[in-house]
Amino acid sequence: MSDINMTLQQAYDLTFSCLRKNGCNEENAAAAASRLTQAEGDMCQAHGLFRLPWYVAGVKSGRVNGSSNPSVKKLAPAVVRVDGDNGFAPLAQKIAHDPLVDCARENGIAVLAITNMFHIAAMWPEVEALAEDGLCGIAVTASYPYVAPAGGIKALFGTNPMGFAWPRRDGAPLVFDQASSAIARGEIQIAARDGQPVPVTAGIGPDGQPTTDPNIVLQGAQLGFGGYKGASLAMMVELLAGPLIGEFLSFEAEADDAGQGGPPKGGELIIAIDLARFGNPEDIITHGEVLFQEVLKQDGVRLPGDRRFKARELTKRDGINIPKSLHDEITSLLDES
Amino acid sequence: MSDINMTLQQAYDLTFSCLRKNGCNEENAAAAASRLTQAEGDMCQAHGLFRLPWYVAGVKSGRVNGSSNPSVKKLAPAVVRVDGDNGFAPLAQKIAHDPLVDCARENGIAVLAITNMFHIAAMWPEVEALAEDGLCGIAVTASYPYVAPAGGIKALFGTNPMGFAWPRRDGAPLVFDQASSAIARGEIQIAARDGQPVPVTAGIGPDGQPTTDPNIVLQGAQLGFGGYKGASLAMMVELLAGPLIGEFLSFEAEADDAGQGGPPKGGELIIAIDLARFGNPEDIITHGEVLFQEVLKQDGVRLPGDRRFKARELTKRDGINIPKSLHDEITSLLDES
Repeated sequence: MSDINMTLQQAYDLTFSCLRKNGCNEENAAAAASRLTQAEGDMCQAHGLFRLPWYVAGVKSGRVNGSSNPSVKKLAPAVVRVDGDNGFAPLAQKIAHDPLVDCARENGIAVLAITNMFHIAAMWPEVEALAEDGLCGIAVTASYPYVAPAGGIKALFGTNPMGFAWPRRDGAPLVFDQASSAIARGEIQIAARDGQPVPVTAGIGPDGQPTTDPNIVLQGAQLGFGGYKGASLAMMVELLAGPLIGEFLSFEAEADDAGQGGPPKGGELIIAIDLARFGNPEDIITHGEVLFQEVLKQDGVRLPGDRRFKARELTKRDGINIPKSLHDEITSLLDES
Repeated sequence: MSDINMTLQQAYDLTFSCLRKNGCNEENAAAAASRLTQAEGDMCQAHGLFRLPWYVAGVKSGRVNGSSNPSVKKLAPAVVRVDGDNGFAPLAQKIAHDPLVDCARENGIAVLAITNMFHIAAMWPEVEALAEDGLCGIAVTASYPYVAPAGGIKALFGTNPMGFAWPRRDGAPLVFDQASSAIARGEIQIAARDGQPVPVTAGIGPDGQPTTDPNIVLQGAQLGFGGYKGASLAMMVELLAGPLIGEFLSFEAEADDAGQGGPPKGGELIIAIDLARFGNPEDIITHGEVLFQEVLKQDGVRLPGDRRFKARELTKRDGINIPKSLHDEITSLLDES
């Protein structure tokens, strides 16, 4: 299968045009296209243009509001809520950033609840943006029921990722963004598409038996990373990104979709902590660097996020590659509309 | 090896006396004895009386202040710091509870930084106490360098547990408290003591090779749960419970101990979230119950913490059992002093 090479600008333009021609207004299309392109730029294809047909399906089905107008409300001195107005996450996240930062700086810690939105993107962009403003960020979101509870065989929890970012003295922040499941949903879907096996820890079939066949895992259930501990984290994320903020649990989000095949509707919770309210932020950041130096002393050890930051440099220079089949699909979405 | 059976009250009295006779004042001895007995009551022996000789060693070495007088300070509207005055964690945690709850109720979310204390206990007691007050609690703490970074072979991170609690409509809260390492340090130490193997995922030898021999893992490094993802969590915990609150990283705590063999000095960070500032708390709790009901529909699946809550009922009735060797050791500590 051949790949199509394009610059990041071309990828953005293609994505933006596709969303514009499929029911998104300029503001929503720009925010979403920016996020999808950012993921491609970091070579995280599972969160990149691969997701675009799903976005389009969401708008076409009438479930996603392509002209969403997210609104901000303070629920308590350190609690900000952004109502996503049933749009895609990126615009709500963009609008929420400054109020969250202000609230964290004022109180030392603040929490953002984003509700009524369709979230299928990675979360490192929002926590990385917080760390670039000198804050420590922690983000969680639920999705669709993909992961079995510890000891169970039926998918109930989302892959429920947690994103974390910490400001560094020089260069990009320390960032990770990892699913509570052993591997991300998108990775299993891509393995299925490409006819590749998945690790045996990734999931089980409908009968509860281990398998390396991604298609059988997609019919069965994914497993938490490290077994029951990952499943516990997945449950924590369900509670924080669901009931706490008045949003769907993963299995409720699936029921809400009712088989239309769009992205999951739900919420996201982000905690922002202002280093400067704990002490001299320079001292705190310098102390963090002591840890990173110790990590990097060991042979062959990288910091989380390093591969993405290197990829970012590479794609700026060489552009990105997407499978021709995906390019054809996107092009047909442009023609259809 | 025969066991000694005793009631919880007897276990408390023995622990309290041992601490009182080894340099703790009444308030400090009572708080620590209460925590160690609570762990025995929940049948988590690795956090129980097994730790008492380590506590005593800490006071005897002069490092731990057995007469600590923890103080509370507000660093920002939603940030509370408690200086543990170089005592054991339980007294500082006890003193910190009410100010944290008040701060979370006022602001919707609050963070507690406990510093200058010696922490070797489990964290479920403090998060469970928050959930019993209607709050969601998340706690993290670092320890000594036991866990290798992802891809490395040298121990650098602590086992760095995360505790989580969520209030339930009836009965005990939903609580988990799990190390970032594949298994807890105490479990490896107990396996070594009892001549039992550990799972191959638990750790590596000094040469980086996998092993099931707990003694070799103790010389080498533990591994994060689920591989690199657990190691990422361990790194996050180092940053939150170390640099952010002006406390030691795990490797710095070890250096500070300088081979005296006492418990690690360091900090703990606890985030408390008041459900009532996000919406009607009854609705939020009811929604959480929907998730728990779905979990419990699956055959053989338990909620995290269930085993402990069942153990709690059992030990109330039948008392606890500790190895005779441990009982002898504690008794000798009573005699020596």
